[in-house]
Amino acid sequence: MTHPSNSNIDIVKSNTSKIENVDFDNLTFGRTFTDHMFVCDFIDGKWQQPKIMPYQAMTFEPSARVFHYGQAVFEGMKAFKDDAGKVWLFRPEENHKRINISSARLAMPEFPKDYFLDGLEALLKLDKDWIKPGVGNSLYLRPFVIATEPAISASPANMYRFMIICSPAKAYYSGKVRVLFAEKYSRSADGGVGFAKAAGNYAAQFYPTSLAQEKGYQQIIWTDASTHEFLEEAGTMNIFFRINDTLVTAPISDRILDGITRKSIIQLAEDNNVPVEVRRVPVSEIKEAARNGSLKEIFGAGTAAVISPISAFEHGNEVFELPEMENAYATMFKKELLNIQHNLSDDKHGWRREVK
Amino acid sequence: MTHPSNSNIDIVKSNTSKIENVDFDNLTFGRTFTDHMFVCDFIDGKWQQPKIMPYQAMTFEPSARVFHYGQAVFEGMKAFKDDAGKVWLFRPEENHKRINISSARLAMPEFPKDYFLDGLEALLKLDKDWIKPGVGNSLYLRPFVIATEPAISASPANMYRFMIICSPAKAYYSGKVRVLFAEKYSRSADGGVGFAKAAGNYAAQFYPTSLAQEKGYQQIIWTDASTHEFLEEAGTMNIFFRINDTLVTAPISDRILDGITRKSIIQLAEDNNVPVEVRRVPVSEIKEAARNGSLKEIFGAGTAAVISPISAFEHGNEVFELPEMENAYATMFKKELLNIQHNLSDDKHGWRREVK
Repeated sequence: MTHPSNSNIDIVKSNTSKIENVDFDNLTFGRTFTDHMFVCDFIDGKWQQPKIMPYQAMTFEPSARVFHYGQAVFEGMKAFKDDAGKVWLFRPEENHKRINISSARLAMPEFPKDYFLDGLEALLKLDKDWIKPGVGNSLYLRPFVIATEPAISASPANMYRFMIICSPAKAYYSGKVRVLFAEKYSRSADGGVGFAKAAGNYAAQFYPTSLAQEKGYQQIIWTDASTHEFLEEAGTMNIFFRINDTLVTAPISDRILDGITRKSIIQLAEDNNVPVEVRRVPVSEIKEAARNGSLKEIFGAGTAAVISPISAFEHGNEVFELPEMENAYATMFKKELLNIQHNLSDDKHGWRREVK
Repeated sequence: MTHPSNSNIDIVKSNTSKIENVDFDNLTFGRTFTDHMFVCDFIDGKWQQPKIMPYQAMTFEPSARVFHYGQAVFEGMKAFKDDAGKVWLFRPEENHKRINISSARLAMPEFPKDYFLDGLEALLKLDKDWIKPGVGNSLYLRPFVIATEPAISASPANMYRFMIICSPAKAYYSGKVRVLFAEKYSRSADGGVGFAKAAGNYAAQFYPTSLAQEKGYQQIIWTDASTHEFLEEAGTMNIFFRINDTLVTAPISDRILDGITRKSIIQLAEDNNVPVEVRRVPVSEIKEAARNGSLKEIFGAGTAAVISPISAFEHGNEVFELPEMENAYATMFKKELLNIQHNLSDDKHGWRREVK
């Protein structure tokens, strides 16, 4: 069945739904996808007719540039359902802005805001049964853009595909996270693409992360590539440090992603009169604070994990265990964020957007 | 028609050939592909049955990790035909070693040497009519590996596809190349993946290169990300400087690709009693050498372009035009390399490998 939506999206509905086969209590992150997907191709210098179609495998030429030169950017966002059955997005305009910032850095075309937001809403209306109510449940949304042009010369493509796929999610990390501070490997260079959600940034972290995992650490907190003396981000999360009652986090830069959860937490901290310092964070300061007991918490912040408390870190072959905190900032901010996202509290900054 | 080859490759031959439709005198690099391709999947912890099949588009899940996290590496190599119709590869074991070095850095499985070499040879036997004799003609070979597992969690995939596709080629660059020395943007970080032929390294260069092109420069010579004071490589080529009669090039590092053309030129220089210095190359030294006339040549070296003479560079808003050289090293080394590759001269280092 094909018909134009309000925003002129061609929609072909799936004849059947896979939802009956899904065990929503036992979801592995990122492996189950909903019944539909959004697709829009960039050809001849412009974005073509946007489409929603049944979720399916697609054909690509072996010479598609994404396979060879990594022109690929993505976003991570979530939809939530409140107890009345209303569906909500969280700051979706920020994701739209950021995917275009990422695209521009990789010489890829920007995607129109109305296509982005209307595409999300049309898709969520079709697949709304996949969003389960209850705090902790969400539908993870993955907009991404890839270079499809079949040509292996090392230059920007002339053909791209923008897609949105959706995957039901529970909490991303289970248990507390132990991290290694990077001393040898690096995530990004000054003047590089670390601020972009560029596909290649992630593959580059897998091997060093696997070495950390062999030592019993789930994640790496990356340091600056030049000196390894300043803490930056965790690759899939920004990082916050609580020193006494002050929240400290690194400033965004061309190496560090401008995280939406990060900036929301900074705002919530201000709302709660929690002092925040956005500044360079020396490894030496954090180690000294751990030694003298002023380091109360470290936590990661990102869309998938929301907030991940960190229980220990290693640097220079020294392991630092963090105390169990009552009234942890991580717990407080996570609760506040989830309450806003699930329409359980006031939304004084206008972060929620209802999908009608 | 399916039958096992000597190395147990399943071969399905194309019923027809596209070769009659190809204008070999007017080839655009990387847009025309031969009749067959080599495919081998990594599933359940091991490389499966290698196959050769008609060149064709393939289906991928939208959640295939290559689209999201950039697990993708490649090689560039060439096959040549001599005047007697014999087909030759140039140092193919080096490409095999390097693709595995790239894969390891991206937490991808290494590919077996016999599959790599036997796959190349079986493919070239099928598509040998696509290799035209004559210096300057070649068949560009593109082995690559991509993560195919359909799951968008940010971790290494469990499923990969290794492929080889082939594209007939003439010379890669036409005319002399003008370059910009990087002052703001960077290609790679210490502790990063610059030494790997990782797909994401290329996408990251496209935007800064497009800015250079707007200023009239075809390429950027990248400098170290920390200080921008040392010249490194050009992204698709290593870079050589001739100062008086000495050849100078940067050492390989975790930021700089270990180029096969680069190391072949270093060997040819030694064979020709040309002094070679492999050391850091300060921007300031090259500018001073350009000013005092001791900088005789700059040239890039890579598989696609072989050797690209550079006619001018810009740094700090200053443009330096290089002299036209008689007896240029670029010309000499290019001729020597091409003669070895095309079986027109002795091969005292055993670089040629006949495809029988």
